[in-house]
Amino acid sequence: MSKHEASLSFFALGGLHEIGKNMYAIEYGDKIIVIDCGNKFPDESLLGVDLIIPDMSYLQENKDRIKALIVTHGHEDHIGGIPYFLKKMNVPVYATRFTLGLIELKLDEHKLLRDTELVEINRDSELNFDEISVNFFKVSHSIPDCLGIVFTTPEGKIVHTGDFKFDLTPAGNEHSDIHKMAEIGREGVLLLISESTNAERPGLTPTEQMVGDHVLEAFRKAKRKVILSTFASNIHRVQQVVDACHITNRKLALLGRSMLNVVDIAMERGYLNVPEGMLIEQDQINELPPEQVAVLCTGSQGEPNAALARLSTGNFRGVEILPEDTVIFAAGPIPGNERNVTKIVDNLFTLGAKVIYGSGKGMHVSGHGYQEDLKLMLTLMRPTYFVPIHGEYRMLHLHRELAESVGVEEGNTFLINNGDVLDIKNKVATQTRNIPTGNTYVDGVAAGDVGEIVLRDRKQLSEDGMLVIVLTMSKRERRLISEPDTITRGFVYAKESEELLKDVNRLIKKTVSEIKGENKYQWNEIKQNVRKSVGQHIFKQTRKKPMILPIIIEV
Amino acid sequence: MSKHEASLSFFALGGLHEIGKNMYAIEYGDKIIVIDCGNKFPDESLLGVDLIIPDMSYLQENKDRIKALIVTHGHEDHIGGIPYFLKKMNVPVYATRFTLGLIELKLDEHKLLRDTELVEINRDSELNFDEISVNFFKVSHSIPDCLGIVFTTPEGKIVHTGDFKFDLTPAGNEHSDIHKMAEIGREGVLLLISESTNAERPGLTPTEQMVGDHVLEAFRKAKRKVILSTFASNIHRVQQVVDACHITNRKLALLGRSMLNVVDIAMERGYLNVPEGMLIEQDQINELPPEQVAVLCTGSQGEPNAALARLSTGNFRGVEILPEDTVIFAAGPIPGNERNVTKIVDNLFTLGAKVIYGSGKGMHVSGHGYQEDLKLMLTLMRPTYFVPIHGEYRMLHLHRELAESVGVEEGNTFLINNGDVLDIKNKVATQTRNIPTGNTYVDGVAAGDVGEIVLRDRKQLSEDGMLVIVLTMSKRERRLISEPDTITRGFVYAKESEELLKDVNRLIKKTVSEIKGENKYQWNEIKQNVRKSVGQHIFKQTRKKPMILPIIIEV
Repeated sequence: MSKHEASLSFFALGGLHEIGKNMYAIEYGDKIIVIDCGNKFPDESLLGVDLIIPDMSYLQENKDRIKALIVTHGHEDHIGGIPYFLKKMNVPVYATRFTLGLIELKLDEHKLLRDTELVEINRDSELNFDEISVNFFKVSHSIPDCLGIVFTTPEGKIVHTGDFKFDLTPAGNEHSDIHKMAEIGREGVLLLISESTNAERPGLTPTEQMVGDHVLEAFRKAKRKVILSTFASNIHRVQQVVDACHITNRKLALLGRSMLNVVDIAMERGYLNVPEGMLIEQDQINELPPEQVAVLCTGSQGEPNAALARLSTGNFRGVEILPEDTVIFAAGPIPGNERNVTKIVDNLFTLGAKVIYGSGKGMHVSGHGYQEDLKLMLTLMRPTYFVPIHGEYRMLHLHRELAESVGVEEGNTFLINNGDVLDIKNKVATQTRNIPTGNTYVDGVAAGDVGEIVLRDRKQLSEDGMLVIVLTMSKRERRLISEPDTITRGFVYAKESEELLKDVNRLIKKTVSEIKGENKYQWNEIKQNVRKSVGQHIFKQTRKKPMILPIIIEV
Repeated sequence: MSKHEASLSFFALGGLHEIGKNMYAIEYGDKIIVIDCGNKFPDESLLGVDLIIPDMSYLQENKDRIKALIVTHGHEDHIGGIPYFLKKMNVPVYATRFTLGLIELKLDEHKLLRDTELVEINRDSELNFDEISVNFFKVSHSIPDCLGIVFTTPEGKIVHTGDFKFDLTPAGNEHSDIHKMAEIGREGVLLLISESTNAERPGLTPTEQMVGDHVLEAFRKAKRKVILSTFASNIHRVQQVVDACHITNRKLALLGRSMLNVVDIAMERGYLNVPEGMLIEQDQINELPPEQVAVLCTGSQGEPNAALARLSTGNFRGVEILPEDTVIFAAGPIPGNERNVTKIVDNLFTLGAKVIYGSGKGMHVSGHGYQEDLKLMLTLMRPTYFVPIHGEYRMLHLHRELAESVGVEEGNTFLINNGDVLDIKNKVATQTRNIPTGNTYVDGVAAGDVGEIVLRDRKQLSEDGMLVIVLTMSKRERRLISEPDTITRGFVYAKESEELLKDVNRLIKKTVSEIKGENKYQWNEIKQNVRKSVGQHIFKQTRKKPMILPIIIEV
């Protein structure tokens, strides 16, 4: 397809068949508009990797065609990749006031703030990129200032929901633009792109106000200090904690860098209303009677270096959790974090704290719509075509079933994968081609420099360690001119394994001396023989497979 | 305390403040009776470690005093450490017929079967070790043939519950000896030692029969092949699957080594009743119409090498999951396994299978009593003293609250830790002393040979890899006589980091040449300087901290 033929396409560079690193794009003719640029956190198999971001090589090759990066909201899985994106292509970034605050924080860390064009938008903004005009509608979620996006193109309207739930009594001024959505649907939607996170959960998401009620009740019951941990970005929940402090006459201290940063942005930009004099510094906590203090902190996911983990082991300088203090986990564990969370709960019990944790306590609601929310969005939008996004395969699959249950025609839902391109021409959608995509690993400062071999080596090193064998050999006579040197790390403790290492030394000498003829002149042959014989011996003796690294020094 | 003073003690070598590696002991005078010897699986921070078992050094030092190892049931966290125990001390092992079957399998693998004295016991057995007599009572759990133990001593009775729930309609002949328990309680229990796994969960555990009903319903609905995965050791659940096959007229194939092994033991010893001709071999699956086949397999916890994981990726030779097949997860994920499980669920969806997974589907019930079960045990036993075991701290703590709620006197519950010794003299319990204890890591064949240094090295290697620097130096002139050799593994991909490695080489030469005076004659000084300057340079350039290993070859 030529670049300048005016056809409409949609694809994802991340966010399909996975939770995380959301990045989507709309192409019309020679223009590309990018939606979100998130990261994902690696699981433990990706040893040493800090972050995963989408492979953006397609965008890089077409960077002159990119008109905008539009960001739906400020969660890491939607903004965490932006610095890496902007390092490769300088594109204006469009986002709401609160979202921009979080993006600016990130760009500042990466020294990108000065050279980036940031454009503030809101629910009423309209952007125009020649044939494409872009409008927005507000959605409720677990962070302020979230938008859904409407792209009006010559082919028809494409709607991207962003992350959403329908909360009819949200905390803060965060009502969904439900009438606007209905109007968009009435006008006709060609393609709906909707998030699928909770497509497995029946019913409707509970309202955020429920959390507020439970928090207040717990604050009222608490006879001493209350420590509450939640996601820093959930400013509505933070507001409800502030309100509970106000009603129960407590001062509030904030602990944890991201809590301080995000609350700062929220207050400065008018998303959080804290009564004058309520906030206290960390070192004032001990100066007040415990029943007049609350602490809001990071670490609800069990992160080992966050405030709550350090509080739970008595390692937070100047702040102590004492018997009869109340500790509230106002966030459910994200899958994979359960063990870290229960470890902290356990530590808090040993300190004698009253701990409110686990589901069923009403201290957390999801920000992502359940099945009935998803069906309501589909019903309002009445799309001709539907692409479920933002979910693992089973969620996308179940979301398709939901779509069909409310009238999307069978065959009109596309379960595409990252890189698959949905082309729309004359109002007919087809998926036949794809663009290159994948994971880019951020490992240290450079993005994309850690490959499969490096990761495979790390895995072997992590489980069985290594054994370096230095062979000093005469160039002419091809024989060892001194004892082989063996050095182990991460394998066995050398002092306790003297016998084994002596045997290995004997075996090395034997192996080298037995190499005959031409092979004697092939250093690689010698290395390979040593690696093999030593490896076999060690495996037989210990069942371990350390990395064996023979080094030959010619003298 | 002299070894021969007749006093009664209880302690744990594992199982307190943790889930796993259960090992408890009763001491009376010069006699020790050990209860259970389990293992625990390491979390991902213990790189390369295969298993964790209790530190048994106290028992080893007192091995002549140990009269018996009594095993309550056959789960890994109660029998997994037995081979390592028996390698260090030859003690007769007492267990029920089914439990012995599983222990024998293990001893056979470790070549210990011939030299171990195995004694079969049942609910009616009585053992006598001079002043101590030992009786048993049957408990319901998620594996057949489980026992609680009553130790009758001159001080009074100690009761150890084993793992239990009260299931009034259990599958199989696994009714609890509830009348016997009541009688024991009526006679008077000095000390109750009871498991705490589900002390956080209100209510009573649902009955295993509920699973049977749901399995049968799913089998009836299934139009094609059914694949069900559960714990191999849950023979009652296996029996219910067999029954569902019988009713719905399906043949049954078993996949996975442990499923084959355990079913074999269960059938041979009369714990599982499979109709003649129902079992088929794996290669017969494709010969039958799919609606006449069921498959029972391992891998319900998402284990990457187990049968279900391989089936889900199409990597099980000869067996395929096809669209409209039904796959049932008849086991809840153990905390920490959630991600691996959902990965498999996702893969199964892509194959087009109907997947029944997640809580609320009635396909799993716990084998451990909830709060009401625990209170019933406490009520039946009416102990003077109480020690909650088998749980993390919060569970033990909550179990104490349950005990007090049914009448155990405040101050009579001991929340002890592994190694703490509870001494009972003249019917008064005190806890003032302890014995050495801790974790022993099984890493390869040897137990206990992996220390903190090795694990720390593995962690560094796993995240940042390593850089070996070989310096060939003249002994006399103390200078480099050739270019330094640098070899990286798990750090960066050398081909893509030529510049960095060139810089490192230059830096090494500069560092070595700048070492002056006396230090020139200290190889360690040279190594340290190289390590430091190279480390700083690399961190500045990459934010990575590879292990730097300078090696000096004197020539």
